[in-house]
Amino acid sequence: MSVRAGIVVTGTEVLTGRVTDQNGPWVAGRLLDLGVDVAHITICGDRPADLIGQLRFLADDGVDLIVTTGGLGPTADDLTVAAVADFCRRPLHLDADLEAHIADIIDRWMKLRNADADTAPLRAGIRKQAMVPDGAAPIPPTGTAPGVAVPAAGPLPAIVVLPGPPRELRAMWPNALTAAPIAAAVAGRVQHRQEIIRAYGLSEADLAETLRTAEQTMSGFDDLEITTCLRHGELEMVTRFPDHAAATYTALAASVTDHHRKHIFSTDGSTIDDQLVAALAGRTVATAESCTGGMVAARLTDRAGSSAYLVGGVVAYANETKIGQLDVPAALIDEHGAVSEEVAAAMADGAVRRLGADIAVSTTGVAGPGGGSDAKPVGTVCFGVAVAGCPTITVRRFLPGDRANVRMLSTVAAMHLLVGVLTD
Amino acid sequence: MSVRAGIVVTGTEVLTGRVTDQNGPWVAGRLLDLGVDVAHITICGDRPADLIGQLRFLADDGVDLIVTTGGLGPTADDLTVAAVADFCRRPLHLDADLEAHIADIIDRWMKLRNADADTAPLRAGIRKQAMVPDGAAPIPPTGTAPGVAVPAAGPLPAIVVLPGPPRELRAMWPNALTAAPIAAAVAGRVQHRQEIIRAYGLSEADLAETLRTAEQTMSGFDDLEITTCLRHGELEMVTRFPDHAAATYTALAASVTDHHRKHIFSTDGSTIDDQLVAALAGRTVATAESCTGGMVAARLTDRAGSSAYLVGGVVAYANETKIGQLDVPAALIDEHGAVSEEVAAAMADGAVRRLGADIAVSTTGVAGPGGGSDAKPVGTVCFGVAVAGCPTITVRRFLPGDRANVRMLSTVAAMHLLVGVLTD
Repeated sequence: MSVRAGIVVTGTEVLTGRVTDQNGPWVAGRLLDLGVDVAHITICGDRPADLIGQLRFLADDGVDLIVTTGGLGPTADDLTVAAVADFCRRPLHLDADLEAHIADIIDRWMKLRNADADTAPLRAGIRKQAMVPDGAAPIPPTGTAPGVAVPAAGPLPAIVVLPGPPRELRAMWPNALTAAPIAAAVAGRVQHRQEIIRAYGLSEADLAETLRTAEQTMSGFDDLEITTCLRHGELEMVTRFPDHAAATYTALAASVTDHHRKHIFSTDGSTIDDQLVAALAGRTVATAESCTGGMVAARLTDRAGSSAYLVGGVVAYANETKIGQLDVPAALIDEHGAVSEEVAAAMADGAVRRLGADIAVSTTGVAGPGGGSDAKPVGTVCFGVAVAGCPTITVRRFLPGDRANVRMLSTVAAMHLLVGVLTD
Repeated sequence: MSVRAGIVVTGTEVLTGRVTDQNGPWVAGRLLDLGVDVAHITICGDRPADLIGQLRFLADDGVDLIVTTGGLGPTADDLTVAAVADFCRRPLHLDADLEAHIADIIDRWMKLRNADADTAPLRAGIRKQAMVPDGAAPIPPTGTAPGVAVPAAGPLPAIVVLPGPPRELRAMWPNALTAAPIAAAVAGRVQHRQEIIRAYGLSEADLAETLRTAEQTMSGFDDLEITTCLRHGELEMVTRFPDHAAATYTALAASVTDHHRKHIFSTDGSTIDDQLVAALAGRTVATAESCTGGMVAARLTDRAGSSAYLVGGVVAYANETKIGQLDVPAALIDEHGAVSEEVAAAMADGAVRRLGADIAVSTTGVAGPGGGSDAKPVGTVCFGVAVAGCPTITVRRFLPGDRANVRMLSTVAAMHLLVGVLTD
């Protein structure tokens, strides 16, 4: 990739850790898709000197393009356009067309609220948002904040300034890319392919060992840019490569798949969620959750169209709910405890029967921090998968980490169990 | 705050947007708690030149402390310690005690897996992780990766190098702070207080107006560092200030609370989740969810000890589940549609009765992207709150955004509704 970019995320709420930045990762992903290499992401607060310091750093580092996010609001503490203009030594001028366009948008909004759209603070805010650095191209707003595209000049890279609200930024992205200064800056890019292999139950160290062997034995290995990363209990291996390395990647993928056949569940980019929908093949599913408390159902309903296969679920947190809503025999709980494969099986069976689903998955475990014992320490989770007309399958797992981690890993485990049973 | 810090997050998976960084925000929050001002967070991939570039930028910017996260693994692409040593011109030496300590940890792990702990790659990895820059203090590992604390020297700030896995980093943080080089670097800090005001249903613009007025009329206003931010449907106003500005903050908080009494629900740092637990006061709660698909129950069970008040819930996604599990009359659905206040009321009533809870909340809405109509566009959500022995309350809301946003805002709305009914 011969075009390099830096991303500057602004906002005190992001810098101080109160809000998780969504823009840096998103913009990085889009630039990479485009064939632009991302060298740095920097985050600063609402102090113009810090912002200018970061722009200076990126320019000195030789990037071809800087994307900034945030700081485009109507109030005085939103300073990005002024700081960028200052950095590029381009005076600001009022863009009258842009001012009229923003005023129009504000006017419609205020009418919906039956409020006055022609107050002095509003007019001042609109005027501020319509200031554009000399020689820069405005990018029309999707909210009220327009962006600007500043052309590269001498040692300074092209800079595209976009708003902070993720929905506004994403909607404006296509127009930002076609703005002449930005199109010129990324013209020299080299598109790479990206392939993802996903594994479940494989350690990073074991995969690293396989990759080390491949590195020593495969010619052309260095053309592959490989990142491995453990995420939500799954191991992801992402490879980027230029077209001429496609055969090398194919050979590597075959070798990795061969070594870890048991654990690799996806080589085509599909997620376990995609695979579950495919594996259901028209059958319906229900959930019976104790320790995950609704997270499995919430994950299943994340997807648009999930009503086609999710009948519903029961969050059976209290024993009375397990007994009353899922017909788990009280004696079974007394004998084996609520966290047991026996109860997990009864919960899944109950969900199939009560909710009339073709298949159901259940979770019951000790998420912690309390409730652990020597026999069932925090992290012990039992799962059941019931398929109407088949023997119910149960599994007991030990999942590491704190309450949030145990619940997250339990949710992922439930997804993999469902797919495993359906594709067996 | 007279001590300034920068944070460097390393990892290609973070830079390329595939993994959300958890360390930058967490470290920033801890530094601020400590009275250290965070000027910059920078994110780089696994290329040493980019990492060194960021260290140089922060040093040139004059920070007193740099915290790095990630890149401490046993494999060759984990380069942070070597890059930091290079940057500080401190040769690396092998710390034999540290090497023995890491070998001990690995040995125990491998025994649990019945694997050989004395292979050449393992020994090489351990040796790599035990390399320490001259004059730096090692920070004992909680996983296998030790950190290092490098003292400030001449124009270079102190640097503390910590591992990437959030659990390891967090566990090592207290030891990092007490390491002599770091303790010396932050000695000059001035602790600030932080107060948070939370509002629901208040716009950022309306709060900004109130703050502008306060700025013009209150003396000492400039001592307050105020950030406002809309997050998950709630508006948060965070104020940091030195002790001498406490009276100014009290006056500001009174003025803001006075102007927006209807919307402000927290001035003491409590979240709506905290308030729900307090408002329940021993009563039990259940959920009946359609469009949120388990997210309300999952949120209620996020907290340790939630079994004391959450009985359970029903995810009634299909109409058959609403009818079969919550006794919603089929005729009611036929007459008003599944997304209606009537059905929301029946769902909440059914949850109270079926699950034997004191109070239940229900959600039924059009989360999208499909399923909308002119009368009930995407974003239309109906809620019900049933309290045993009281009339059931229903609300219909229009919530903006895509499917994920509508579901998230519905979950937050359900929490606020519950608290509202319980504290009325």
